[in-house]
Amino acid sequence: MSEIERQRQDTRLDRYLDFYAERTNGLQVSAVRALFSVANRPEVVSLAGGMPNIADLPRAAYGEAVSKLIRDHGIQAMQYGSGQGEPFIREKICEVMAEEGIHAHADDIVISCGSQQALDLVTRVFCDPGDIVLAEAPSYVGALGTFNAYQCQVVHVEMDDDGISPTALRQAIHTLRAAGKRIKFLYTIPNFQNPTGVTQSLARREELIAVAREEQLLIIEDNPYGLLTLDAEPMPALRAMDEDVVVYLGSFSKTFAPGFRIGWVLAPHAVREKLVLTQEAATLCPPVFSQFAIATYLDEFDWRGQIGVFRDMYRARRDAMLAGLAEHMPEGSTWTHPLGGFFVWLTLPPGLDAQAMLPRAVSARVAYVPGTAFYADGMGSRNMRLSFCFPTPERIIEGTRRLGEVLKAEQAMHATFGLADTDSPRGTLQLGPAPDIL
Amino acid sequence: MSEIERQRQDTRLDRYLDFYAERTNGLQVSAVRALFSVANRPEVVSLAGGMPNIADLPRAAYGEAVSKLIRDHGIQAMQYGSGQGEPFIREKICEVMAEEGIHAHADDIVISCGSQQALDLVTRVFCDPGDIVLAEAPSYVGALGTFNAYQCQVVHVEMDDDGISPTALRQAIHTLRAAGKRIKFLYTIPNFQNPTGVTQSLARREELIAVAREEQLLIIEDNPYGLLTLDAEPMPALRAMDEDVVVYLGSFSKTFAPGFRIGWVLAPHAVREKLVLTQEAATLCPPVFSQFAIATYLDEFDWRGQIGVFRDMYRARRDAMLAGLAEHMPEGSTWTHPLGGFFVWLTLPPGLDAQAMLPRAVSARVAYVPGTAFYADGMGSRNMRLSFCFPTPERIIEGTRRLGEVLKAEQAMHATFGLADTDSPRGTLQLGPAPDIL
Repeated sequence: MSEIERQRQDTRLDRYLDFYAERTNGLQVSAVRALFSVANRPEVVSLAGGMPNIADLPRAAYGEAVSKLIRDHGIQAMQYGSGQGEPFIREKICEVMAEEGIHAHADDIVISCGSQQALDLVTRVFCDPGDIVLAEAPSYVGALGTFNAYQCQVVHVEMDDDGISPTALRQAIHTLRAAGKRIKFLYTIPNFQNPTGVTQSLARREELIAVAREEQLLIIEDNPYGLLTLDAEPMPALRAMDEDVVVYLGSFSKTFAPGFRIGWVLAPHAVREKLVLTQEAATLCPPVFSQFAIATYLDEFDWRGQIGVFRDMYRARRDAMLAGLAEHMPEGSTWTHPLGGFFVWLTLPPGLDAQAMLPRAVSARVAYVPGTAFYADGMGSRNMRLSFCFPTPERIIEGTRRLGEVLKAEQAMHATFGLADTDSPRGTLQLGPAPDIL
Repeated sequence: MSEIERQRQDTRLDRYLDFYAERTNGLQVSAVRALFSVANRPEVVSLAGGMPNIADLPRAAYGEAVSKLIRDHGIQAMQYGSGQGEPFIREKICEVMAEEGIHAHADDIVISCGSQQALDLVTRVFCDPGDIVLAEAPSYVGALGTFNAYQCQVVHVEMDDDGISPTALRQAIHTLRAAGKRIKFLYTIPNFQNPTGVTQSLARREELIAVAREEQLLIIEDNPYGLLTLDAEPMPALRAMDEDVVVYLGSFSKTFAPGFRIGWVLAPHAVREKLVLTQEAATLCPPVFSQFAIATYLDEFDWRGQIGVFRDMYRARRDAMLAGLAEHMPEGSTWTHPLGGFFVWLTLPPGLDAQAMLPRAVSARVAYVPGTAFYADGMGSRNMRLSFCFPTPERIIEGTRRLGEVLKAEQAMHATFGLADTDSPRGTLQLGPAPDIL
């Protein structure tokens, strides 16, 4: 039976085919996803995943602390809790955000099941089908998945080495509004952006806030990596510059551990109220035990010191990746030099196609995420995202070596058979968010 | 400043008023919600909340087990996980469901952030705005909140002492389809229904499955209380009778502890696939640490024995409530006699209005949830839901005594001022789901 026949039969077997909501039309498992299950084999160096390396956490001591939490406060920690999230962890989160210059009140924070769910709640509160969401070109694959799930149209705004371009942003706003489109917000990752690793300069942040004020534009600031700065102190968050035009999304997934699934939204009062009601309808309350467990960590452990440990570990990995790329990439390749976070964005020499060569790369035991996954409009085929967060420095160097060989083999092949046109849109790669690519 | 003026000013202060999605129009904080914060004071006997009593769990020993989990498997338990949920807990859930006659494969289970989020995912996959959802009259307040959040129209179907009426169900299907309406599913709680406490008889279950098969109707079976049977062995789940027409929702919130926020969906293969992609867009992955923690409990503790302990405890509370009601309710009141679960449904003598008298009841230091919260169509003003899950038997008896006095005072007042028409729709009470009323 051919693949097409099998799919047809699967379709006939789904007796509920006529019952699904319209929003499910965009849902599909990408063929590339299958490759990632291969990429997780130990012999493959995966530069694809965005999983933090949490091996350095003080597990034995933390286990003891959680044991005491269950013994002494289990009746509260294992019970239902507040739909907004527990007050004590919201207080603690204010302390965490103060590290990036944010002055916030615990009342304006809503806890979520990871910051992915924070983004889901914000999109649910703001977006009707057909609404426009502005986002960097490229942008986080998980955010594109959420916007797609709510049937929004993503319009990408050009970025440079200082982040999203205010000129291009202003132009996009004017063009879209003149065409009668409803822009709901700009989604931006100011620090060590996923996937490019680019950080907005201070001047750029001020310009962005000015555009938002003048144009009545809401900014969704997604900041999971902000404290993982590798070369300098953290820059002030956009939310530190204006509390009315910014909805801020935070997360413990990269600064502590993702398995607890605790993120948060900091929002202006009126928005916050809608988020709480939406969270209650979505989950009754976000994970209660996780909130107690994270508060225990923040209370009893040196979380600032631990972030310092993480920084040192990720700095060595970032440096390994940059050294490996400098040594192994063929001429004509360029890449970003991130000041923090997890990712480097590689641009291939003209004619190479990162998505097309992925199966050959995985055969050569190295994996990455093709750039097309980070665009809603089919661009990005000459790009790939390389993560330095999870493999050891030695494995990262080996990964870049293998990648360099794959690229050189592709170039040799193209010298024989001619170049592809990799600067035109290639059709979108709907990877969707997933734990193995994030 | 009057309440209306204050609301107007709040509205003017919200600069994003024109930006919200249409679905937020139904979002509002009910005035009744404010009462429940009072109801949580220790001097009030709250018969309102649906919180389980988890005081009997072996906390010290469980704390030790979780400590070992973190020490030995923390790197996996605190990391990102599968969007579908971890395989080992899905295997365990098959064992739990087998207690109610369900034969399932772990592949067909999707883990959720509490079964509230399971319901959210299912609704998201099936329902467009304006679609019809059928539900018992009355039905779970949190489900009504979810259906409202997705802009569905709930049509209630009459029930009797054996559960939802198949005749009324068939008639509703025919009438609605003849009017060109799209029915997406029937939402039903077969065991110890929230809010009525009513259980579907075996014959009734078979009739329901027959209707679903004949009418191509999908059934969403919500079964959080099923194992908390107080007088007999659990009945077979609807899903045990048919695996094609039933999507089953389960939860650990009542049989273990709600704070971990772990529920699940068991769905036919094609539906399950859409649920996984939807879960990834919503949360990347459901709470990973919670899944490990619950698997540890199921592996290392006598969970069946613990459910036996819970049954004995809830049986004493149910019996206390039935005895208290028999002693203290004024003539003309009737109530259900639940065989399990958490709830009794009280019908007041004609002319009494449960919603109107709630502030006076709270003043008299007893709280309940007015029946109108459980209807999307304004019915239920002569009803209230009384929970026996959380207060001790002594407090339950005292609560029914206080309630009896409130009812008698209301009757005296109505004898002076005349009866209200409490059998007509009174406008909906949008309580929404919340941890304190569930």
